[in-house]
Amino acid sequence: MRRIAVLTSGGDAPGMNAAVRAVVRTAVYNNVEVYGVQRGFKGLIEGDFIKLNVSFVGDIIHRGGTVLRSARCLEFQNQESCRKCAVDLLNVFQIDGLIVIGGDGSFRGMTSLTEYGFSTIGIPGTIDNDLAYTDFTIGFDTAVNTVVEAMSKLRDTTSSHERITIVEVMGRRCGDIALYAGLSGGAEAILIPEVQYDLSQIAEQLIKSNNRGKKQSIIVVAEGVGNTEFISKEINHLTGFDTMTTILGHVQRGGNPSSRDRLLGSMMGNRAVDLLLNNITNRVVGVKDNQIMDMDINDALRSKKRFNREMYNLSKVLSI
Amino acid sequence: MRRIAVLTSGGDAPGMNAAVRAVVRTAVYNNVEVYGVQRGFKGLIEGDFIKLNVSFVGDIIHRGGTVLRSARCLEFQNQESCRKCAVDLLNVFQIDGLIVIGGDGSFRGMTSLTEYGFSTIGIPGTIDNDLAYTDFTIGFDTAVNTVVEAMSKLRDTTSSHERITIVEVMGRRCGDIALYAGLSGGAEAILIPEVQYDLSQIAEQLIKSNNRGKKQSIIVVAEGVGNTEFISKEINHLTGFDTMTTILGHVQRGGNPSSRDRLLGSMMGNRAVDLLLNNITNRVVGVKDNQIMDMDINDALRSKKRFNREMYNLSKVLSI
Amino acid sequence: MRRIAVLTSGGDAPGMNAAVRAVVRTAVYNNVEVYGVQRGFKGLIEGDFIKLNVSFVGDIIHRGGTVLRSARCLEFQNQESCRKCAVDLLNVFQIDGLIVIGGDGSFRGMTSLTEYGFSTIGIPGTIDNDLAYTDFTIGFDTAVNTVVEAMSKLRDTTSSHERITIVEVMGRRCGDIALYAGLSGGAEAILIPEVQYDLSQIAEQLIKSNNRGKKQSIIVVAEGVGNTEFISKEINHLTGFDTMTTILGHVQRGGNPSSRDRLLGSMMGNRAVDLLLNNITNRVVGVKDNQIMDMDINDALRSKKRFNREMYNLSKVLSI
Amino acid sequence: MRRIAVLTSGGDAPGMNAAVRAVVRTAVYNNVEVYGVQRGFKGLIEGDFIKLNVSFVGDIIHRGGTVLRSARCLEFQNQESCRKCAVDLLNVFQIDGLIVIGGDGSFRGMTSLTEYGFSTIGIPGTIDNDLAYTDFTIGFDTAVNTVVEAMSKLRDTTSSHERITIVEVMGRRCGDIALYAGLSGGAEAILIPEVQYDLSQIAEQLIKSNNRGKKQSIIVVAEGVGNTEFISKEINHLTGFDTMTTILGHVQRGGNPSSRDRLLGSMMGNRAVDLLLNNITNRVVGVKDNQIMDMDINDALRSKKRFNREMYNLSKVLSI
Repeated sequence: MRRIAVLTSGGDAPGMNAAVRAVVRTAVYNNVEVYGVQRGFKGLIEGDFIKLNVSFVGDIIHRGGTVLRSARCLEFQNQESCRKCAVDLLNVFQIDGLIVIGGDGSFRGMTSLTEYGFSTIGIPGTIDNDLAYTDFTIGFDTAVNTVVEAMSKLRDTTSSHERITIVEVMGRRCGDIALYAGLSGGAEAILIPEVQYDLSQIAEQLIKSNNRGKKQSIIVVAEGVGNTEFISKEINHLTGFDTMTTILGHVQRGGNPSSRDRLLGSMMGNRAVDLLLNNITNRVVGVKDNQIMDMDINDALRSKKRFNREMYNLSKVLSI
Repeated sequence: MRRIAVLTSGGDAPGMNAAVRAVVRTAVYNNVEVYGVQRGFKGLIEGDFIKLNVSFVGDIIHRGGTVLRSARCLEFQNQESCRKCAVDLLNVFQIDGLIVIGGDGSFRGMTSLTEYGFSTIGIPGTIDNDLAYTDFTIGFDTAVNTVVEAMSKLRDTTSSHERITIVEVMGRRCGDIALYAGLSGGAEAILIPEVQYDLSQIAEQLIKSNNRGKKQSIIVVAEGVGNTEFISKEINHLTGFDTMTTILGHVQRGGNPSSRDRLLGSMMGNRAVDLLLNNITNRVVGVKDNQIMDMDINDALRSKKRFNREMYNLSKVLSI
Repeated sequence: MRRIAVLTSGGDAPGMNAAVRAVVRTAVYNNVEVYGVQRGFKGLIEGDFIKLNVSFVGDIIHRGGTVLRSARCLEFQNQESCRKCAVDLLNVFQIDGLIVIGGDGSFRGMTSLTEYGFSTIGIPGTIDNDLAYTDFTIGFDTAVNTVVEAMSKLRDTTSSHERITIVEVMGRRCGDIALYAGLSGGAEAILIPEVQYDLSQIAEQLIKSNNRGKKQSIIVVAEGVGNTEFISKEINHLTGFDTMTTILGHVQRGGNPSSRDRLLGSMMGNRAVDLLLNNITNRVVGVKDNQIMDMDINDALRSKKRFNREMYNLSKVLSI
Repeated sequence: MRRIAVLTSGGDAPGMNAAVRAVVRTAVYNNVEVYGVQRGFKGLIEGDFIKLNVSFVGDIIHRGGTVLRSARCLEFQNQESCRKCAVDLLNVFQIDGLIVIGGDGSFRGMTSLTEYGFSTIGIPGTIDNDLAYTDFTIGFDTAVNTVVEAMSKLRDTTSSHERITIVEVMGRRCGDIALYAGLSGGAEAILIPEVQYDLSQIAEQLIKSNNRGKKQSIIVVAEGVGNTEFISKEINHLTGFDTMTTILGHVQRGGNPSSRDRLLGSMMGNRAVDLLLNNITNRVVGVKDNQIMDMDINDALRSKKRFNREMYNLSKVLSI
């Protein structure tokens, strides 16, 4: 490979920039040219390519978001002609391999390039941690810490007013942000899509805690669970305690990446280039058992995410 | 005075604990006993008093919320008999003066005690900065910094996706949080209750900026302005740009107080006790022209808040 | 004025970028061109000028340090010919006025330009808060909050080990960082250049507190007070308690500016340009009684800083 | 087991409180009583035991340091009689098992109890990550993030002044803090005890980078490497560039624990109690390949730490 390209796609995640930096520097270190594709697959079909060098990535490792920017691109997804166009552009630019940093949807977009025989490598960048083949995705650790800090602030006001705070966090199908943040933030209950919940049981526990002297509680709800406002009202109805709802929203996407997400991004970006240099393609990079690994993309997309039941059960034990 | 009491009331604010600490230590330093009234006026009518000493406030200056807790108390507000009862309890406990840390409503509650001849001093504790007689209230600086940090996170994702973020912050009648945070967070537009807004004009400016190359913008909206979701949709409709709404909510109340709020709390708590010790009562403490001051409570409640138009105009100049 | 320039000089301070941004945007808003002089007076004598526009300052308000960079420049200070050369260069570039953001030394450098009849305005940018004519300098509030956060971390380990932590903070002649951070961080003692200290008295107080049950203490020392390591050993010798020394160092200079420093920078930068536009020159901008003000530079440099004894005394009362 | 005890020993580490909380709650959940031993082995030989309940650990998961406090105890280490006394006290209190949270030295202390047939379990709590048998220790992730944040602040001032910053971090025999923080903070060079360093080579690289336009660099040095001040002067001598030294010191120990350290603490504390409940003793808990595990303590103490050379090499590639 003499020239490769990199793009970020889907929702941005802290640590994506560390991955872009590692891609660029590893490539340059190996005398390979790198292009950045701006605004994800949209930039790919529009030929929005810029040459990247060592300085371009000189001051980005600590920044949230993605300097290559991201965008939704329905055309790429839906129109064969657009995908064909993207491959043609990559060929015109004499680009031999493409690294895609993103989530599930981005990886599916990536596979449509491999159908044209184009070489690709995927890096998991999404705060949701909803990719089954990897223990962690880039951005997840930062998002969890952001939620934990927000919970800290909410606990100040929650305990001052002796009430129940219901906080909704991101996670449509995967409750990992809620589970990790809930456990480390000391939440009294955690509602996630993977587990059926029973509000009357939660209410009972809240009343019991209250009788024991614990006047305030925080309940973390993953957005995929259902209507948080409804849950809040129901809890209020069942317990008689004041409830307050907070929907954390997009602040969860931003912020300076944690050390861990910078390391993940750095190591995965490095591995992605190494694979391309060895002509190993159509794979996704991940981390398993604390080791950077890679895997065939189709196998990865077919994997089913294992639910961490031990952690969930632990949250029950520790919230007594 | 041989024995005084202190309570926190209304919405909690970071720095209230610094004020409580200063009240306790200044009193003890002057050989005066201090009682804490728990849960605001509710605790006052229920006799929920605890003796406070130097150690009780030994590790609270850096904590958000209020260790004395707070609560709404409609009975105190509405029933003459409850207020009478509160005064009786204060007398039974041989308490000679009461310091109330809170906002507008708390100060009105306080005046109803003075009608019984009871000595009181008010300290402005509210994140909203909506008290006219003082330049700043305890908690405001922390809340503004919390919003500015959230804006920083939002900017990461906003610029990655080239869109418009509409962020709603606290402030029903007073737009100070929006104004200070918007100006220091580099918002492209600030919508506050004090100024009529014109969405088509804002849209025009956003389009102009976009043509000039600025692909992302943040608009800060004080909650008192109206329906933020509606504003968001209208901006989207008028500009054609993607918009995203975030309602920051109760995280704005919490967090470790900033140095400034700890200093305000410390100095105001100290002044409040000094006034009581000198038998100067029925006053509220504030900060004016960077000096701690005090003022008759009725004059204070009659003051009209001056809108900082220079700051507002400056935000227009700097967001070009 | 048709064209002005701006430079940052001396130690960098968080909020300098907000001032640069305000200078540029206010100028552009008024159809005035702005040049940035890089690396302070060094860039001035080397003609290291760059044209600044609205986009250049588009993403800097939240960043510590100074995008224009800074440098020491002994030649400018010592050699008449260098100063002459600077003025010639400013004239060649048809620059009508220069805004200098920096501290005491930078302002003195600035006055040497006015001797050539060149128009200048100074903005106080230094974390030390050691300029007498203004209540606050840009960067001070951020530095104090940085120290307070570090004290919070130190308190965790201090109280776990029941010892005395001596923390040295910046401040050669002016103890304001130590005083403000010490008071808001709940320090048990504050040593500053403005006040004679008596270690045996401090030791006595520490022993008394220890007997009362307070097993840990933090002492804040301004660097100008003397040898911190010696003080630490002396405290250990006098009390028999374990002591631990931490010298915070240059982390105090950096970090994202607080809201307050961004506002100060924004308002002062705006005022500086307004003055130049009105042909009012050879002045420095400041904040007094919570109002942005300006003053003749020579009067400013002659002012003597008032020591805030009330605040110092308060720290004694609150650390009982 | 009907009654167990827990102590923290050695240098405190963020997340120790999460481990204490998990020990207490898991025990109570299983109807086992828990005592806290205060001030480590010192409290053990002095019988400084307190009964712990669910509320005692109700508000500690987010706090740095250790609520049980820690202390050095040479007597326990050196005197057989003291160790005997500790076992006698544990028996008097009818304590069946002891959980020790600490580092290498604490574990060695622990083994001397097992020689008396007393049941123990160790939990790795130390910021240094210098225990060979576990991938990570509690406190390490927080310390790394603290250093990364400090590096961010230092970078602001470093780049403003175009110089070289040498920052010394903790780590006597183990360079993990330097390595992880250096890599994720984008350090230009990392000096650790595990690898011979060559200052002239580093100087050469700095000069090359400077010629290419990179005017500022940060070098991270583990304290075990040698005299940081000397290194700083040598770099200055070899390159001619300004250097600045910062010794981060004890701030690295403190701070609110990261989510990861809270999770590690929670899971390890839970596992420790589970082991005792199953009469599996004289083991240490750890995390290996992202799984909580346990191991015979003597095997653990005999393990040799593997140096992460891949990560070190990666830091070289990414700092070009």
